[in-house]
Amino acid sequence: MDAACELMHNRGYGSIGVAEICASADVRKGSFYHFFESKQALTMEVIDMHWARQRAVWVAVLGADFPALHRIERLVRSQVDGQRSAKESLGVVNGCLLGNLALELSTQDALVQRRLAEVFEEQIAMVEAVLVEAESEGTIPTGRTNARGLLAQVEGMVLFAKLANDPDLLDDLWAHTRMLLGTVPEPARAR
Amino acid sequence: MDAACELMHNRGYGSIGVAEICASADVRKGSFYHFFESKQALTMEVIDMHWARQRAVWVAVLGADFPALHRIERLVRSQVDGQRSAKESLGVVNGCLLGNLALELSTQDALVQRRLAEVFEEQIAMVEAVLVEAESEGTIPTGRTNARGLLAQVEGMVLFAKLANDPDLLDDLWAHTRMLLGTVPEPARAR
Repeated sequence: MDAACELMHNRGYGSIGVAEICASADVRKGSFYHFFESKQALTMEVIDMHWARQRAVWVAVLGADFPALHRIERLVRSQVDGQRSAKESLGVVNGCLLGNLALELSTQDALVQRRLAEVFEEQIAMVEAVLVEAESEGTIPTGRTNARGLLAQVEGMVLFAKLANDPDLLDDLWAHTRMLLGTVPEPARAR
Repeated sequence: MDAACELMHNRGYGSIGVAEICASADVRKGSFYHFFESKQALTMEVIDMHWARQRAVWVAVLGADFPALHRIERLVRSQVDGQRSAKESLGVVNGCLLGNLALELSTQDALVQRRLAEVFEEQIAMVEAVLVEAESEGTIPTGRTNARGLLAQVEGMVLFAKLANDPDLLDDLWAHTRMLLGTVPEPARAR
């Protein structure tokens, strides 16, 4: 599972095969099919394992004893830190595994698509709940509990950082998030 | 080229092979290798063809005789319309071909990665120029000429729409863009 998760994160789905996953995990190919019916079945488990790990971090960060907006900031910055560590340890900004799989597989594999859609809706709900708190704490204006837009900004900026293989592109991510949330003082009013 | 472009857009890179592209174009596989050295070479041409077509639209929309912010709105809405048409004609929200290839290939194929990075930088520069105009026209506040954030929001929201196979998720895209650009009146000021 660790080998599959790592290979899929760094290289995508289509370019890796069961043989390579087994070689990387140092197991025989026969063993693979003892545990997984198919590459699709493995992918479903990879998604669940990855999200279980990531979810534990999100629960800790979003449930911490800080003002809501600060918890959101910590979550956004943790995504940036994750991409920076990947670049440092692997030499590549490998992006968001779930976002990568979403764009590669969602028009091809209905089972994977459904599971990824559920995970993203869960992410959106988790962020939304904290944005509602921030709204009631008065740190974001009314009507800015836009969790989908916030996570879309993360996914889009991570796409650019992955493409440029440059985690520094994410230095502005929190500033962009604040723009979406309406917490940036604006010198001029638009008409 | 049309067959390759369509297959790659709707199904991604990894899941299609030269044989399928040839079958779809109704040509023999030998002919393929007369024109293209490899699937990578074809992919480079697909990117160029797709961007040439898309660029022509962008140039027309962004160069039209409208106020700058209105041109930006038309560009954003054209992305939404594109996804809605794909859903209507193909049954799937196929997303942004260049974004799809970026997440699938950028850690695997340095040539494709470099070309896609160039295209996105060109897109960002095109949008940035119009945002600077909007700033000088007074329709966006100073310091909001954030073309990368705007295009990241498009890519991220298109990812969610593709994953859910639901173009209606993009109904809020222009509202999100206005939040990024600071053109949304905000009822309360954040601290």
